[in-house]
Amino acid sequence: MEKQFDQHISRQFNQELEMLRQDVMAMGGVAEEMVRDAVAAVMEGDTAKAQRVIDMDDQVNEMEKEIDEQSTMILARRQPTASDLRLVLAIIRTVNDLERIGDEAEKIARLAVRLADVDRPRGNYQELENMGNTVRGMLHDALDGFARLVPETAVKLVREDEKVDVEYEGLLRQYYTYLVEEPRNTSRVLDCIWIARSIERIGDHAKNIGEYIIYLVEGKDMRHATMEEMEKTISDSRS
Amino acid sequence: MEKQFDQHISRQFNQELEMLRQDVMAMGGVAEEMVRDAVAAVMEGDTAKAQRVIDMDDQVNEMEKEIDEQSTMILARRQPTASDLRLVLAIIRTVNDLERIGDEAEKIARLAVRLADVDRPRGNYQELENMGNTVRGMLHDALDGFARLVPETAVKLVREDEKVDVEYEGLLRQYYTYLVEEPRNTSRVLDCIWIARSIERIGDHAKNIGEYIIYLVEGKDMRHATMEEMEKTISDSRS
Repeated sequence: MEKQFDQHISRQFNQELEMLRQDVMAMGGVAEEMVRDAVAAVMEGDTAKAQRVIDMDDQVNEMEKEIDEQSTMILARRQPTASDLRLVLAIIRTVNDLERIGDEAEKIARLAVRLADVDRPRGNYQELENMGNTVRGMLHDALDGFARLVPETAVKLVREDEKVDVEYEGLLRQYYTYLVEEPRNTSRVLDCIWIARSIERIGDHAKNIGEYIIYLVEGKDMRHATMEEMEKTISDSRS
Repeated sequence: MEKQFDQHISRQFNQELEMLRQDVMAMGGVAEEMVRDAVAAVMEGDTAKAQRVIDMDDQVNEMEKEIDEQSTMILARRQPTASDLRLVLAIIRTVNDLERIGDEAEKIARLAVRLADVDRPRGNYQELENMGNTVRGMLHDALDGFARLVPETAVKLVREDEKVDVEYEGLLRQYYTYLVEEPRNTSRVLDCIWIARSIERIGDHAKNIGEYIIYLVEGKDMRHATMEEMEKTISDSRS
């Protein structure tokens, strides 16, 4: 980051961009907390914890609006170009994905409230906790890669996301069997399917943030790109 | 649109913005076609039609990338402010929602392929067609409102989206009963649940586009706002 900032004449502009970056990191921290607590609320049947996650969603929505407003003001007043422009655009995209992560965490928390009232299954939702931990790790990596501008993060996240997708498909098959074999648990199993679905979506959003890091550092739009294309873009720029 | 364009000195800039707007409309047209054909493919068990929708998703993804690239170039070269800046930012957001609508239509089409191989239920998926028609109408209205800059469209879309949400909840309850009563149809019913879910999401995205119209015309960020707040923003600006 430092090197890119040097080229600015305006110290105030640097400060504005730096503050914007810090706001994104703060928003990312809240989103991460929501994901962690939402999954924990499912595991522990803790409705108070779930309620706190639900309340935090407003905070994330508010943060998105504020960061977007700041970004728009910077675009209008500072008229950034090159890497500064890419930073602002990458921030606008990133907070959009963070906001959606907050939405998914809120959905999980609402389902946690409902599940807290019903008998717990033998496995005690262990399978959901595992997948939840994976995507929380992905979100953490995405934010870390964004803060330190490490484009390789994107490749790692694509790989992780593929693992999550496989895990998710396996879970769906398992839940499907439950639906057929234990129709009296239909409601609970459907709720688990929704939770798994939201966790899987959180992984997608973390992967998206990874793609913006490549855009930010290399100037290439990597959405819908394969892992190989990403690796090529990164290695080409190094040679 | 005309009035806002008058203030530009540069005729070329006007042309660039106009072309960008036309590209968004073209992309919206493709998304609308995808939604229509995906739902029709479910109804008709038409795998060829479903496959065409699946193929169109690449086209929509490509359109998003091109429009984003054009938008970034305009931000860098023309450094627009005020309503021009809002137009470019609203376009970036809109194509993101259109791309996600394409994703949902693709998902519906993939499920249509799977459903084409199994016995059709008595109602022949009529309930999905109804909801599909509603959200297709919403998308059409959103694009029309965006083209003609009618902020009232946003309020209409919120109202429609509430109806879709109620319809969706009702459908889920109905499907839930099927799951309990006819466990041998679990696979088909789950597919219907996913389709209903995707249709409901398309309605959300159409509603989002409506919010960008208010942003574009009034300069107010209406995300997460209530219908009353939207109506107030519009009427305040008229008085």
